[in-house]
Amino acid sequence: MRDVIVAGVGMTRFAKHLDRSLRSLAHEAATEALDAAGADPGAVQAAYFANAVAGLTTGQEMIRGQVALLDLGLSRVPVVNVEDACASASAAFHLAWAAVAFGQYDLVLAIGAEKLTHPDKAVTFRAIGTAVDVGRRAEMAQARRAPDPGGPTGATLAETEGEPRDHSVFMDFYAASALRYMEESGATREDFAAVAVKNRAHAALNPKAQFRQPVTLEKVLSSRTVSGPLTLFMCSPTGDGAAAAVLCSRAVARRLGVRPAVKVAASILSSGLGASPGGGDAGHDAILAAYGRAGIEPSDLDLAEVHDAAAPAELRLYESLGLCGQGEGPAFLATGATGLRGPVPVNTSGGLLAKGHPIGATGLAQIAEVTWQLQDRAGERQVAGSRVGLTQNAGGSIGTGPAALSVHVLTR
Amino acid sequence: MRDVIVAGVGMTRFAKHLDRSLRSLAHEAATEALDAAGADPGAVQAAYFANAVAGLTTGQEMIRGQVALLDLGLSRVPVVNVEDACASASAAFHLAWAAVAFGQYDLVLAIGAEKLTHPDKAVTFRAIGTAVDVGRRAEMAQARRAPDPGGPTGATLAETEGEPRDHSVFMDFYAASALRYMEESGATREDFAAVAVKNRAHAALNPKAQFRQPVTLEKVLSSRTVSGPLTLFMCSPTGDGAAAAVLCSRAVARRLGVRPAVKVAASILSSGLGASPGGGDAGHDAILAAYGRAGIEPSDLDLAEVHDAAAPAELRLYESLGLCGQGEGPAFLATGATGLRGPVPVNTSGGLLAKGHPIGATGLAQIAEVTWQLQDRAGERQVAGSRVGLTQNAGGSIGTGPAALSVHVLTR
Repeated sequence: MRDVIVAGVGMTRFAKHLDRSLRSLAHEAATEALDAAGADPGAVQAAYFANAVAGLTTGQEMIRGQVALLDLGLSRVPVVNVEDACASASAAFHLAWAAVAFGQYDLVLAIGAEKLTHPDKAVTFRAIGTAVDVGRRAEMAQARRAPDPGGPTGATLAETEGEPRDHSVFMDFYAASALRYMEESGATREDFAAVAVKNRAHAALNPKAQFRQPVTLEKVLSSRTVSGPLTLFMCSPTGDGAAAAVLCSRAVARRLGVRPAVKVAASILSSGLGASPGGGDAGHDAILAAYGRAGIEPSDLDLAEVHDAAAPAELRLYESLGLCGQGEGPAFLATGATGLRGPVPVNTSGGLLAKGHPIGATGLAQIAEVTWQLQDRAGERQVAGSRVGLTQNAGGSIGTGPAALSVHVLTR
Repeated sequence: MRDVIVAGVGMTRFAKHLDRSLRSLAHEAATEALDAAGADPGAVQAAYFANAVAGLTTGQEMIRGQVALLDLGLSRVPVVNVEDACASASAAFHLAWAAVAFGQYDLVLAIGAEKLTHPDKAVTFRAIGTAVDVGRRAEMAQARRAPDPGGPTGATLAETEGEPRDHSVFMDFYAASALRYMEESGATREDFAAVAVKNRAHAALNPKAQFRQPVTLEKVLSSRTVSGPLTLFMCSPTGDGAAAAVLCSRAVARRLGVRPAVKVAASILSSGLGASPGGGDAGHDAILAAYGRAGIEPSDLDLAEVHDAAAPAELRLYESLGLCGQGEGPAFLATGATGLRGPVPVNTSGGLLAKGHPIGATGLAQIAEVTWQLQDRAGERQVAGSRVGLTQNAGGSIGTGPAALSVHVLTR
């Protein structure tokens, strides 16, 4: 297997880009990544295009990548459209990595782009709901129709605020997981809010983040409940954007003059049933597999970008990553260990919570952040001297259904 | 690069399976392929799941493969969802081939499944229309609104019969290409009808085909016009189904006792702008690349499955494949050369026209047919002693827009 180098990365700002097309977003991210790599579009031998829901939000269900990349002039090279829910872009990156690592190609483009916002919010919310399998969605819709006066789930709350039913389905999974975690670890709503406060503070230093205003614990706690115990600021927002990476062999990287060379030390893509974000066995196994492949231990990590689709998930992930013991996530956060100046900053980009979560772009935005950090190009949020970074990304029916899991380790 | 063996293939009957789920169709095809390979589901190291429009017809936009393969018990291995319009399943097969050829995995599953039919026909027709890029669709809709009394396009005809607008968009591309071909080659409507007659005759011998009743030239010609000069029987039907292949290394095939070993001699995936099915330059280049990779010439072909989404496309493809000279497609067909008892039978399965065309399953159904032929398991439609077969598959905005192209050569 050959070394694979992340020669360049790019991304648009994540935001509600109602006025921009998938094509325009994809073009911006791809162009930035190619420029950063010093590579011409003509050098791209294949493109792996990730998107999760543009079929529903833009009407372009088929050949999404071929259309989105039209302006790039990749008219003859293979374009494979890849979907793995919130892990779509990590799956595209994994395919791109494999193509170079095993010698099929020497330089390829991995790109993820998403148009999640839509003038009709119901379209967006319905689209998000499709990460849950149809059967389970029907079950949950049924359960909602039955009155549940004593239950702690916020489904009813979300509905009373007039939100379409499918929206909160997704956050209900995270809410249920959060409630279990509170029982197991003694975590409080304040602990969850503290994750949001930290990630917002990081995002304030990231010009590409969706939310750049720091927030206080009070503000997070007093924002409206989406699905108890999760308040609005504890949930990742809807938004649009694109992120891309150019991957190549070491020989090509040398020829392009890529410096420093950020290497893919591990690329894991797997599936999980019953995998909660980081808490389930399959999620943990994926992390262990990545450590094994990269030949590292948790203590070697200089930073990590993790899948904080909801704030509590990040605390669980500290534990799954082995940064602290089981149930110690809240205490670990409280020490400041995962803040920008701590020993192992987590979500320096702002994470899904504050940088944003345009589903099909998220995995590559994580890769972009870690690459910039290892390249010493992270500006105000630079983690000095970082040499080992990890990304963790999960997609699908978190909790009880089928899911895609992906973990990458990048080293300098 | 290692030899890759198609250890086993499977497919459902193609039909309007309104009562069956994507999951049930996928399970049937995958199980048949695994059984044929003598492999246990537990031996599958990765799955590449192709689907084109289930997001629109079933509501499962994300993690389609993870949900569809639930019953197979592939709960931990990577499942990559792949979409390349009508070439989706060929793209999945290509990724599966690459994973084994370059040594990432030893045994993988490529599967394509489609639910195209829907109780509301408008949903199906809109879904089909999304193989054309949004911009072009808007242009065409605009053109339709303007009256065009002298134009030969059948768009208006289709509309007067009350069909939703998006349906005929797709066949309009094929119709425009057919009109150009008539001018270039002197082909007639009778020539196009003869393709349909031949492929229906083949399908009559294929228990998995959607249409098993032979038709006469008169019947094809007198069926209603979809988009002039194309009549209904010259167009592939809408339908549902799934097809799958198990691919493995030669060492694994030996261990499984796979006999005879059908080898992937060439796997080409590329893109084309302005590529008509087989007639455009990109389409021709993909075929030449496949011949080069496999080290064969047109005269070596014992049979071929080609993308006859509309009947005229097959005639053009005879020329692109080099089976006859430019403009000689109709005459070549008339010799009976591509009939079941001819020197190079084309679409022994019945092709897209008669076997059916559930978009995301089509590429793997082509692979299944050629594999069965090379394994001497094609029953009544067996081409005796066949050793070299080709599949050609195209997806996307045929004619003037972006498209995915794929050509495979299998040898025994």
